[in-house]
Amino acid sequence: MPESTMQKIVSLAKRRGFIFQSSEIYGGLKACYDYGPLGVELKRNIKDAWWRDMVHRRDDVVGLDCSIIMHPDVWRASGHLAGFSDPLVDCRNCKERFRADKAPRAVPGSALVCREGGKRDGRKLAGTVGPAGYVCPVCGSGDLSPERQFNLMFRTSLGPVDPVQEILDALDSLVELEPSKRKERLAGIVDRTAVYLRPETAQGMFVNFLNVLNSARVKPPFGVAQCGKSYRNEITTSNLTFRTCEFEQMEMEFFVEPGTDEHWFDYWSRARFAWYQSLGMRAEKLRLRRHEKEELAHYAKACVDVEYFFPFENPEGEGEWGELEGIANRTDYDLRRHSERSRKDLSYFEAETRKRYVPYVIEPAAGADRAALAFLCDAYAEEMVEGEIRTVLRFHPRLAPIKVGVLPLVRKDGLPEKAGEIMRELMAAGINAFYDESGAVGRRYRRLDEAGTPWCVTTDAETNANGSVTVRERDSMRQTRVPMTGLAEHFRRLLGGG
Amino acid sequence: MPESTMQKIVSLAKRRGFIFQSSEIYGGLKACYDYGPLGVELKRNIKDAWWRDMVHRRDDVVGLDCSIIMHPDVWRASGHLAGFSDPLVDCRNCKERFRADKAPRAVPGSALVCREGGKRDGRKLAGTVGPAGYVCPVCGSGDLSPERQFNLMFRTSLGPVDPVQEILDALDSLVELEPSKRKERLAGIVDRTAVYLRPETAQGMFVNFLNVLNSARVKPPFGVAQCGKSYRNEITTSNLTFRTCEFEQMEMEFFVEPGTDEHWFDYWSRARFAWYQSLGMRAEKLRLRRHEKEELAHYAKACVDVEYFFPFENPEGEGEWGELEGIANRTDYDLRRHSERSRKDLSYFEAETRKRYVPYVIEPAAGADRAALAFLCDAYAEEMVEGEIRTVLRFHPRLAPIKVGVLPLVRKDGLPEKAGEIMRELMAAGINAFYDESGAVGRRYRRLDEAGTPWCVTTDAETNANGSVTVRERDSMRQTRVPMTGLAEHFRRLLGGG
Repeated sequence: MPESTMQKIVSLAKRRGFIFQSSEIYGGLKACYDYGPLGVELKRNIKDAWWRDMVHRRDDVVGLDCSIIMHPDVWRASGHLAGFSDPLVDCRNCKERFRADKAPRAVPGSALVCREGGKRDGRKLAGTVGPAGYVCPVCGSGDLSPERQFNLMFRTSLGPVDPVQEILDALDSLVELEPSKRKERLAGIVDRTAVYLRPETAQGMFVNFLNVLNSARVKPPFGVAQCGKSYRNEITTSNLTFRTCEFEQMEMEFFVEPGTDEHWFDYWSRARFAWYQSLGMRAEKLRLRRHEKEELAHYAKACVDVEYFFPFENPEGEGEWGELEGIANRTDYDLRRHSERSRKDLSYFEAETRKRYVPYVIEPAAGADRAALAFLCDAYAEEMVEGEIRTVLRFHPRLAPIKVGVLPLVRKDGLPEKAGEIMRELMAAGINAFYDESGAVGRRYRRLDEAGTPWCVTTDAETNANGSVTVRERDSMRQTRVPMTGLAEHFRRLLGGG
Repeated sequence: MPESTMQKIVSLAKRRGFIFQSSEIYGGLKACYDYGPLGVELKRNIKDAWWRDMVHRRDDVVGLDCSIIMHPDVWRASGHLAGFSDPLVDCRNCKERFRADKAPRAVPGSALVCREGGKRDGRKLAGTVGPAGYVCPVCGSGDLSPERQFNLMFRTSLGPVDPVQEILDALDSLVELEPSKRKERLAGIVDRTAVYLRPETAQGMFVNFLNVLNSARVKPPFGVAQCGKSYRNEITTSNLTFRTCEFEQMEMEFFVEPGTDEHWFDYWSRARFAWYQSLGMRAEKLRLRRHEKEELAHYAKACVDVEYFFPFENPEGEGEWGELEGIANRTDYDLRRHSERSRKDLSYFEAETRKRYVPYVIEPAAGADRAALAFLCDAYAEEMVEGEIRTVLRFHPRLAPIKVGVLPLVRKDGLPEKAGEIMRELMAAGINAFYDESGAVGRRYRRLDEAGTPWCVTTDAETNANGSVTVRERDSMRQTRVPMTGLAEHFRRLLGGG
């Protein structure tokens, strides 16, 4: 069977150092990934482009960087502690633990049919479909435990207390309790020092609303942007870095006067859709999808997703729309909740009009890992060149991990020394360059194509003769001669200055 | 009592949006901090300068970005699971929990003297100092629990399992065990799904050694650099962001041939010491301190710290040397440990000489938060200007959060419009600029001094007449006239291009 596009991308990602499985020498860790030397540059470039376009190039957005561990009251107020959970069920037949809301549906009360692969451990399926109306996704059994709510936040413990030791110390008194009281008491011991890894960066902007207002001389409409890791203990992870338990968000909360929220919702939907194209993503692979009413989070008035058509494999073939970013009208829900719980007034007083209001919030929330994966997939191309398949990553130059490859045509005649001079000039200018002198120059070009390097500079006999070099462009493979002096300025101009 | 320098810095940090206490509206969270609009820019600039100088400006270092949650075997191999702990003791008199190794020393067997403040809850101290030879740091009592090892790693749980539920399900069988077996069994339940937040980024480079070697075409001597959060459940936290449980590291592991390690250790010690000065830190506030033999970690052959003289308050007055960065010769310890545990060959084969060896590692490990705090303290200055105290942050332009303030002299005569044009030009060039039109221009200069902004551009009557603007320099307060066109290029040159 031929390799699918996604398999090729996964294998390129590992081979060339974009994405490795985390802790691979220990067998890996479920849905955790590391960015290799090329991947870290790609992701940095995406995050930098986001920060530049969302913060530095605007006078109405400021930045913020909050700690990942926050006070548990933040999650009580936001509703994440009570409500951010999946319903989990255990199969008593095959011991699988699965999400009830993702399980295969069946008519309650109907007799179970033993399907192919429908047994495990030699046990036979029997009985009828339970009242919940679904069966085990692995073995098809209807013999299931009750649903248990499983909170998606990662819990840990802050302070000089080891919960294991605390539970041990309380063990005898725990058992003396009635079984119905035990969980409460046990949870109480754990909760005393429990803190959570944030499931979204957004709450950091809400709880710092007053701090930003008082320190940054901003007034609505204004935004607060943050880039950082968030954590969700997802049961179902898939497709390389598309859905992982540890991921990086690029979120911005834009505070506006109620009544202007629909205008700003449209504004940001359009702006964020355009952003991906401004970095070279193909328009035909992008769409804006508006959420249906029943799909909306309870606090949201409206939401659209920017979706990319990923080359994921699925039963219907290759290709699947996946969310890159959601733009939500969160109304004044979050500020009001934190206002109530903290008893701090999180409203804004407009001096000119003497109006006081709790701002509405428009939130463009993007995933940095998903963006990196989408840009990687979008850049991937194969083409026939001189009877051979050329694999090339057509990154926008601003996103390309390596900007310039520097190659002496041969390893003699002073060409490596000239190439070394060029390397030093580019590196001093902060342009990420890569020196390569081993192998035929054609093979070196191919390797740099595969890394998505937009330009190669080659020193050759003419360099010695007249001080010119060959600059080869990745996509067209066109070669032009350029003076060796001023190469850093040349590439800086091509990269768009700054 | 007059405010100390540190109190002034803490208050400026909050007032101007450098550093806020985390979750402040909920009373804050012990030793967790958020970076406000100015702070996030300062810290980003420091991290960017580090990346540029350590990765992009070198051809022997590549980057990496690993997940914070790693496979628990990583910490078994590195020794962090067994050995990364503090000895904790409970005081039976006042209930304080404290670190045995930081407690006040006393002669074992000597009678306890009741000192001032040496009681709590009205109970009297009595008895003798125990065999361990220390007393409670709060109440002075010698009536102490045995020492318990407390691991500094944050533990959490990965996967669709709630440890509280698992313990509850196992409660009856736990109690039936002999007390001596209970802890083992309880720990077993927790360990089945336990993962840890990394206490250092370094192990990510070690476990990816082969991945980098195979994908990035590097050979020793070469380095792998990473910037990211780490976590240590520190008992003693202090001095704003100096010691916190969540912190950001900038670490580089430099792999070298054994025998050349001492050369590279000296090289990196000097290079890293010079780095802080290259960004404007005052030489007289910096020192290199070599660790004594008994201070070295068991795996380290040598270590020096780059220390900064912080204005921390202490019993002797103001000022205290604190570590900014440690440069360690970690030998081949880590690669060997991971080799043994993973059974993967983590050695390097040098093709030319046909030599095989496990590289030694020189590690410059810096703290991004400490660097930000040190640059903030170092930049802080007060001086008398025209009979008033001027507070100014003398940041190196590359580190300054805002590069240029843009001010119309008055709010009429088309001056705000001209200033707006300049803002747009600077923002388009990615230069972080701040527009301010409210209040007297002298007050606006002072506000921007306090934010550490190196330059202000003011539009005035002459701007309309001949297209020139005033550029005012922060430190000298000197004003010069400059043409309005080409300001972005002007400042980009001053910022050192790139």
